[in-house]
Amino acid sequence: MARLDIVVTYDVNTEDADGRRRLRRVAKICEAYGQRVQKSVFECSVTAPQLERMKGRLLKAMDKQADSLRIYRLIGGREGCVETFGRDTYEDYESPQIV
Amino acid sequence: MARLDIVVTYDVNTEDADGRRRLRRVAKICEAYGQRVQKSVFECSVTAPQLERMKGRLLKAMDKQADSLRIYRLIGGREGCVETFGRDTYEDYESPQIV
Repeated sequence: MARLDIVVTYDVNTEDADGRRRLRRVAKICEAYGQRVQKSVFECSVTAPQLERMKGRLLKAMDKQADSLRIYRLIGGREGCVETFGRDTYEDYESPQIV
Repeated sequence: MARLDIVVTYDVNTEDADGRRRLRRVAKICEAYGQRVQKSVFECSVTAPQLERMKGRLLKAMDKQADSLRIYRLIGGREGCVETFGRDTYEDYESPQIV
């Protein structure tokens, strides 16, 4: 099934223990489908049904009054859409790995 | 000239006064071309030369050893690429405004 590359960004007040707990939950959900690339930015690759399921889980984990969640579709795939500067922790598991 | 819709995400340690200052500078640069939609996420609409100039300014403002900056291109425009949940401060200045 075709995969969609998406970016999930999550804004939460992490001065607050509840906020930190919600961020950990959101990170855990996103990391099931991709990678954490910044403190509250995740790059994921999902099929359409996975995206629906992921959204449902994220909506349950977040506080809709207090937090902001945005999902961006990277049309044509992340490779052609992303430019990074400074620290970069993304690992390309699709490319041949040198061991 | 054609405009590109982009998302800029910036990861910096804001526990540190220098980090907070760099985030303020990055926000100021991005807000010249768009809107802050989360604490460290900005949606901007730029021409290709503006993007080059903006990148130059961002690279000067950031600390490449400590911070992470990512720029995502929203191919086909933000409208078709973004989904938001929870708090949303984005204002669509392109649509007719009710005053």
